[in-house]
Amino acid sequence: MPGIFISFEGPDGAGKTTALNKLMPLLQERTNKEIVLSREPGGSPISEKIRKIILDIHDQEMDDRTEALLYAAARRQHLIDVILPTLNEGKVMLSDRFVDSSIAYQGGGRQIGTKEVGEINDFAIDGHLPDLTIYFDVTPEVGLARIKKDHEGAMDRLEKEAIDFHNRVYDSYMDIVKANPDRIKAINAQQAPDQVVQDALTVIVNRFPNIFNKGE
Amino acid sequence: MPGIFISFEGPDGAGKTTALNKLMPLLQERTNKEIVLSREPGGSPISEKIRKIILDIHDQEMDDRTEALLYAAARRQHLIDVILPTLNEGKVMLSDRFVDSSIAYQGGGRQIGTKEVGEINDFAIDGHLPDLTIYFDVTPEVGLARIKKDHEGAMDRLEKEAIDFHNRVYDSYMDIVKANPDRIKAINAQQAPDQVVQDALTVIVNRFPNIFNKGE
Repeated sequence: MPGIFISFEGPDGAGKTTALNKLMPLLQERTNKEIVLSREPGGSPISEKIRKIILDIHDQEMDDRTEALLYAAARRQHLIDVILPTLNEGKVMLSDRFVDSSIAYQGGGRQIGTKEVGEINDFAIDGHLPDLTIYFDVTPEVGLARIKKDHEGAMDRLEKEAIDFHNRVYDSYMDIVKANPDRIKAINAQQAPDQVVQDALTVIVNRFPNIFNKGE
Repeated sequence: MPGIFISFEGPDGAGKTTALNKLMPLLQERTNKEIVLSREPGGSPISEKIRKIILDIHDQEMDDRTEALLYAAARRQHLIDVILPTLNEGKVMLSDRFVDSSIAYQGGGRQIGTKEVGEINDFAIDGHLPDLTIYFDVTPEVGLARIKKDHEGAMDRLEKEAIDFHNRVYDSYMDIVKANPDRIKAINAQQAPDQVVQDALTVIVNRFPNIFNKGE
């Protein structure tokens, strides 16, 4: 495909979303290609409907595997409606989370099994993996401390469940990073925010020097 | 599990639904156990919501794999909400279609791949296959002729696409039946309707003689 597809992954509190907002204009300065930032379900009407089901009845009686299949369905339609057309037009697609999040959170965190959740996501994406994935590496302790700071007193319930869950998410991400050394590059997301942005920028520009070549 | 789980499969026009309605009272005469007849999404509120998405936007812009994942999600939740509780209470669960339909129709008919659709359904049912599956065997020609008779003039579009599609569904069902000789028993559904019911009854009673033992 003529475009390039970059996903951004990491545990809660890794600072992905903040970094992406700063990264967008820095990348755009360096290329004539249009850059599109998306986050599932991101502008796919069918995916929005699917996500609405997940959110409407979340925490009530939905089974974990049902939820994992719904996330995979929403991802599939988002891929078809948004990501593939963007790549076909030769644009740069940045995605805030993609398959690795499902594998880490639902496969590892919720203990469905990373292999099992990986398989239904393989079905959903049918080979369309990102060209590059930037992994924002923070320990569960640092990530949770950041979320806690953001939410102040509202963290009691999460805090109780959080440590084991987030340790499992972190361990799953580590396994995914190790298993995909060509696709996934980890950056140290415990540094100062501007340094994190700079490191992400360096990884992307070095990987695609022919695309991000303006102003040099 | 204390209950028993029987699914009924076959191509369109096989006469499953009619036969099931006649079979229910004949089975009930022979057992003290409660018999529950269900058809997905069948009384699971979350599954109904998922099916509503499939039906609302069917034929518009939904991708085949998205649809397959949504069917698997609805099946999972129906299993959790209806089938497993019924089996846990020691009842007899009859299901008009189950996983084999997805594999034959979506995997084979729509050409996603029977292995691929099988895998996401394995994820959905997590080992809870029926104890027995009755396969209603009719050739695509006979099945289509029956549907055509039922729908009269309204079959033009389907008829055009139908032959190839239904041949693929039939071939996939044949593969599934051959691959699962212990679980699936085929009956000749091209016979007179009462004989089809009688054959299904015989298969079930012979398989579970200790359950269907009343009035002998």
